[in-house]
Order: sequence, then structure tokens, then C-alpha cells
Amino acid sequence: MTGTLYGIGLGPGDPELMTLKAHRLISQARVIAYPTLAGAASFARSIAASIIPNSAQEIVMDVPMTVERGPAQTAYDTGAAEIAQALEAGEDVVCLCEGDPFFYGSFMYVFARLSDRFDVHVVPGVTSVTACAAKAGLPLAARNERLTVLPGPLPEDELRRRIDGAESVAIMKVGRHLPKIRAVIEDLGYVGDAVYVERASLPDEVVCPLADAPQTAPYFSMILLTKGADPWL
Amino acid sequence: MTGTLYGIGLGPGDPELMTLKAHRLISQARVIAYPTLAGAASFARSIAASIIPNSAQEIVMDVPMTVERGPAQTAYDTGAAEIAQALEAGEDVVCLCEGDPFFYGSFMYVFARLSDRFDVHVVPGVTSVTACAAKAGLPLAARNERLTVLPGPLPEDELRRRIDGAESVAIMKVGRHLPKIRAVIEDLGYVGDAVYVERASLPDEVVCPLADAPQTAPYFSMILLTKGADPWL
Repeated sequence: MTGTLYGIGLGPGDPELMTLKAHRLISQARVIAYPTLAGAASFARSIAASIIPNSAQEIVMDVPMTVERGPAQTAYDTGAAEIAQALEAGEDVVCLCEGDPFFYGSFMYVFARLSDRFDVHVVPGVTSVTACAAKAGLPLAARNERLTVLPGPLPEDELRRRIDGAESVAIMKVGRHLPKIRAVIEDLGYVGDAVYVERASLPDEVVCPLADAPQTAPYFSMILLTKGADPWL
Repeated sequence: MTGTLYGIGLGPGDPELMTLKAHRLISQARVIAYPTLAGAASFARSIAASIIPNSAQEIVMDVPMTVERGPAQTAYDTGAAEIAQALEAGEDVVCLCEGDPFFYGSFMYVFARLSDRFDVHVVPGVTSVTACAAKAGLPLAARNERLTVLPGPLPEDELRRRIDGAESVAIMKVGRHLPKIRAVIEDLGYVGDAVYVERASLPDEVVCPLADAPQTAPYFSMILLTKGADPWL
């Protein structure tokens, strides 16, 4: 009997925002896996740290920070092979992901490598989009409103076109793209409708109007724009 | 001391997909509130049923099923007044919402009526979008891919334009709009990339290619289209 691979969403950062199912599966895990970036600590692991059994084997996929995809692909190839070995030995493997595994989550790289050979079960998690909206007190979409999710690294002209054509917009992974994104939103005249949120649900979170956002933003930051949303029934 | 109003996301339906925070707040609640539609049972309440204290007071906002907004507005006005009365008496009120309160959630109508007068705390939940993706084994968005969320009741020409301009698309509230949406997706040539999901995470869930979808769909159904998404790193 081969084991089952679980891709587990842990939510935006506050450990209390993980699901009961995530809590149960991690508490009982014998093998856990997660990626790290260039040797840094794993954010996903930190969210689950207090419930990971001491006895659990940990498979770490260390992804180097390079522009080319090759070295990262090799890291996921190697990690997937280690996970496959555990699954073939009959162990279940719990793969930890911040947010949701299929929403900009690195788990999908593991999934792509193993889902045709093993049973995979994905446990969805709270995404940073709704966590940021909750903290900002900003309803995202009601009735027949549309929501568009855009990654901040998109080119300026595409950001401009997509923001202009949508009602509610969540711009993820703001980071070093903040000046570019802010310029586009100012230019379109929506700066008064935009909120900046950094590290939502963590002790050091920041929530403020985009106009008051800091000059530099971390990777885990977001801009929410709800120019067309109408929360009143 | 007035109480705090909690808007609590319960996730897509499986009680195990509620967050630890939702579980804690509901288990300790003295007053809970939720909407019902034309006297039918509350889906949100059913998700939390096993942990609602027997002693809890329940504020039911029964929303009539009418085309005009007026009667529904009156129902939320009345419900908000009842909630306000409890808050003013110093009680916390826990408002139950399926999915996430600010993502097509009816809680935003309560929020709009009370957030300027009371402390409101929103607990985000797992949305049906990522729950459906998890069940369908369909990564939604990676790297710089874009995701658009569209409600099924949108007019055909708008659906067509929005689907054509996006990479990954989640079409919510399919219900009786299934034939219209299917025709648009067939016409655009994307039917092979589309998955139909009904009542994700519940015992009677349905997951199948759009081509095999049933002729009639319930309100809680979704079509996921990931024509541009590339889960491989």
C-alpha cells in the first residue's frame, strides 16, 4: 500500500486560521514536507510549528533564489523524489503550504510531479485575499460583482488594463513592485479606493490607505481596490 | 460596554474546513445570528450545528425570495436592529456565514448596517473557489498568472468577454445559468479545459468535466476554467 500525499493550506499566518482538518492531519503526521527559499526559515512551517510532532520526519525542499527556473526545478524534482520514496514505503506525507495549495502555492509544483502516480488529497486554506479584506474591513464582492486577482510583478501596461476593466481587484505579491503599482492606481484615479495590507493576521501586520503605504513593501503584501463594490443590499 | 460583532466564515460545507478560530468563537457563543432564505434551513447554521451551544440565543434574519431588493433590505434592517440590541446589552454576537464573509457573503449586508457603530471583527473562511479547485485537482494560479472570479448570472456578452480575457476563471453561482455559461465556453473553444463542481466538500458533491455536467445545477455549483494555468515550475 502506497501512502497518500496531502497538500495542506495553512491560511495567511495566524495559526488559528488553519482549518480543523489541517490541524488534525498535521498533528498526526509522520512525514512532513515543505519548501524553503535559499536556506531561509519556512513560513509555512512556522505557522504549524506548535503542532508538528517531534517525531516527524521532515523533507525540506530548498529552492535557490535565481532568475532562471532550472535550479528551482531541480529542487522540486529532488524533493518530489524524496516524497515519492516515503509514499512508496507506505507513509502518508503532509506537505505544508501557506495560504491555499492551489492559489499561488508552491505545492502545485509537487502536485504536478506526483499526482499521476500517487493519491493526492488537497486541503484548501484561507487565502491572503480574504484575510486582507477581513482586516481592512473591505467587502470584496457581492451579488453579481466581479473580482480579479493580479500578481504585482505583471508589466505596467497589463496592470493598468486589468485594473481599469475590473470592479474589485486584489493585487498580490506587491513587494518591490509597490511604486509601479501605486503609480498605475494614482494615474487611473483610484488611489482613494485602495487599501494596503502587509502580513495580514500576523502580529506585525500593517493595514492602511494606499496613500499612506510605506515606501518599501515585503513580498507578503497586497493592495485591495474595491472601486465598484457595493456592500449595501 | 457594548459587545463585539463577529462575522465568521465557515468554509464551503465540510465542518472540518472551518478554522480553529471559527470553532472557538462559535463554541463559546451566547448569541448567534444568520440569514435564512424564505424560511428554508440555514446552510451556514448546518455547518456549525454540532458546536452551537444549546443555550445560545439565535437571531434569524429571514430574507424573502423576491426580485425587488426592498423586502430583503427590510429583513436585514430588522436583523441588524436585533443584533444591535444584543451588542448594546453588552453581548458579543457571532454571525454565521458559509464560505468567507466578504466574498459574496450575506454578512456584508449586516456589516454595512452596523460597522460604523460597533466593533466588528471578521474571521475569514475557506472560499468555495479554492475548495472546488482542491476537489477538482486543478491548480488555479501560479507565478504571474491571473485569476478572475465571475458570477454566473452576468449577461452572456459580458461572460464571453471576461472569460476570453482571463487565464484562470472561476464562475460562481452557476445554478440555472448553466446552459448559458456552457454555450459561451463551448463557443470560445474552452470546454475541454473546464470542470464542473457542485457542493464541494459535502457528502453529495459532484466533480466532472464540464462536458459531462448534469442538465440542471444547484445554486452552490461552480465552473473552473484554467486554460492558461501552468502548474509546472
